[in-house]
Amino acid sequence: MSADLPTDVTRLTQALIRCPSVTPAEGGALTLLENVLTELGFVCHRLTFSEPGTPDIENLYARIGTSGPNLCFAGHTDVVPPGEEDAWSVPPFAGEIRDGILFGRGAVDMKGAIACFVSAAAAYLAQSDTQRRGAISLLITGDEEGPAINGTVKVLDWLKQQGEQIDACIVGEPSNPRRIGDEIKVGRRGSLNGEIIVNGRQGHSAYPALADNPVPKLARIIDRLSVLPLDEGSERFERSNLEVTIISVPNTVTNVIPGQARAAFNVRFNDNWTRERLEDAIRSCCEASAAEVEADMRLTFSFSGDAFCTEPGPLLDTLVAAVRDVSGVTPALTTGGGTSDARFIKNACPVIEFGLVNATIHKVDEHVPVSDLSALTAIYTRFLERFFAAA
Amino acid sequence: MSADLPTDVTRLTQALIRCPSVTPAEGGALTLLENVLTELGFVCHRLTFSEPGTPDIENLYARIGTSGPNLCFAGHTDVVPPGEEDAWSVPPFAGEIRDGILFGRGAVDMKGAIACFVSAAAAYLAQSDTQRRGAISLLITGDEEGPAINGTVKVLDWLKQQGEQIDACIVGEPSNPRRIGDEIKVGRRGSLNGEIIVNGRQGHSAYPALADNPVPKLARIIDRLSVLPLDEGSERFERSNLEVTIISVPNTVTNVIPGQARAAFNVRFNDNWTRERLEDAIRSCCEASAAEVEADMRLTFSFSGDAFCTEPGPLLDTLVAAVRDVSGVTPALTTGGGTSDARFIKNACPVIEFGLVNATIHKVDEHVPVSDLSALTAIYTRFLERFFAAA
Ligand SMILES: [Zn+2]
Ligand SMILES: [Zn+2]
Repeated sequence: MSADLPTDVTRLTQALIRCPSVTPAEGGALTLLENVLTELGFVCHRLTFSEPGTPDIENLYARIGTSGPNLCFAGHTDVVPPGEEDAWSVPPFAGEIRDGILFGRGAVDMKGAIACFVSAAAAYLAQSDTQRRGAISLLITGDEEGPAINGTVKVLDWLKQQGEQIDACIVGEPSNPRRIGDEIKVGRRGSLNGEIIVNGRQGHSAYPALADNPVPKLARIIDRLSVLPLDEGSERFERSNLEVTIISVPNTVTNVIPGQARAAFNVRFNDNWTRERLEDAIRSCCEASAAEVEADMRLTFSFSGDAFCTEPGPLLDTLVAAVRDVSGVTPALTTGGGTSDARFIKNACPVIEFGLVNATIHKVDEHVPVSDLSALTAIYTRFLERFFAAA
Repeated sequence: MSADLPTDVTRLTQALIRCPSVTPAEGGALTLLENVLTELGFVCHRLTFSEPGTPDIENLYARIGTSGPNLCFAGHTDVVPPGEEDAWSVPPFAGEIRDGILFGRGAVDMKGAIACFVSAAAAYLAQSDTQRRGAISLLITGDEEGPAINGTVKVLDWLKQQGEQIDACIVGEPSNPRRIGDEIKVGRRGSLNGEIIVNGRQGHSAYPALADNPVPKLARIIDRLSVLPLDEGSERFERSNLEVTIISVPNTVTNVIPGQARAAFNVRFNDNWTRERLEDAIRSCCEASAAEVEADMRLTFSFSGDAFCTEPGPLLDTLVAAVRDVSGVTPALTTGGGTSDARFIKNACPVIEFGLVNATIHKVDEHVPVSDLSALTAIYTRFLERFFAAA
């Protein structure tokens, strides 16, 4: 590997964190990966996709090996915004290590896991290049935290058009609640976004009779929606959950009654629900509380995927064995947490998710112990050995 | 009067509207007034006041006549922002007249009324200069629509330091709901602002157990606060009223649970309340609903004035008579609507408010019929005649 490219998992993670790749910015992260993978012998394709109304997004598909099976590692270099930078203990894009802990936006979600897989692939290729079977590929998008329109979905379409098959996929999303090895995600709940707009009439707070304040009406609707019982979970899924995450008014002056108030919410739902039945239940709740307060309400939904679960098989068995080999732990097979691009990849081949510890994702002071990077690299390496030995 | 200064009430109102004096900008409005008043024989004082954390503000005090009583006209040349300029029928600072209607920001609140008083003073001074008694003064601030820190309060302090007394005051705020002569404001409700902050813990909506969503907690508090019964009004005041006018979270992404949610409210309250008892009642309500949902809540208040009412007396009697003389209407004596600088002046001398029609204040297409300018000028002129005849 050339002298100016990061040669170990920690330095590669730091270098990736230093690329400010907040969705939709590439930030240099894909270029860095492309250089490292090219050096390792991968054939790289940079894929930029567009769609009216969304920003252009860069993606990367890299492959080494010409025969099957093609084991794909999928991930994203884009990150969510750092939030209040002043609240961070270290600058969010500095990639600083303190007492063996590497801080930075993307440390666990998921630049760290990408570095682990690249490092594992390098180790596996170094030890086995005489008798190698199959292919290793990486499908890295820059649009996982954003609308996910110009990312994995379009890369998968492009692979299909090229006649390029992937046979099994690990998504490197942070799957572990506490320790590396805790959990492998074998499915995900569905996700539904909604927006509630209450229209009123703007005016001065001293003349309330001339105005119609939408804020207390929206508060009533949010209050009711937040306690709406959904379900108690199902055999393979935890309970469905709704969070109202945004509230706003187009007003910054305390003595002006705003003309409109807005809320947005996200629902994570299990296989008790279809999209249609869930939307109906939410609409009924909102309309009933809107009627209580005579609110002029508009409710709209945007859907991002149904619940799914990957059936047991060789991909999962091999990863469970690799986790046991390295960490001595038998991972739980779970379906909790957020959506990931696995919801798209599941239509192409078996897909499971295993990465770092998710305790600090999307938070201030997102961080990863350097020892976790070594542990995950060892598990990915062992997985590659077992996977291709059995292939 | 010199040739290049506006000589009649309509031209003076137009010229004032053309000064873009959005708080805290002086915009040329005080300089224009100073020139016109100096030409009429007034002695003018430009007073600029400062306070850390607020913009410097210019004010004007002008007086003609050396003996008492000193009748003061108080007003402001600053205006609220025009809002969406595209929504205006004419540019908000052009001072255009269409079909006898003068449009522009400040037309009624309250450049028009200032022009009416200047014009009335000129007429009164022209007719009576041989046997004149008493003094006429104008206290014009540039900080009525803003924080009101470097405005009327500090001008009153300055007057006190100078040993300058004002004996009766008319504030030219737009007091009439429909027609000139409808209402004289003889008092105002008090005003109290409050801010509610609920602290939670930021996180991903897919991992609600790791986060603590402040939004539904704030919604519960707003819901309860918005239906808190205050009172049913009092002998001279309408009922107290609370409006929650702002809600916000430091979050724009639907799948991120925000770490904090904020609301702001404004209360207009009558003489059933003191500031302390009102704050206690609001705090009890907020704390009870915060306890219901285990909210980590902070509630802070900022006060802008108690309710007050000016007792009947010669000032009010004289203005009622002048309105009757000119318009044939007996004005209602009311205490509704927003605060004004009368809340400060009441500590110096009897103060009442009478100006133009308030239907379009702070709105797009704020306007005044040119005939209203003549009517108000006639009433102010008649008032000056009666006031000094009785003095
Ligand atoms: Zn992720
Ligand atoms: Zn005003």
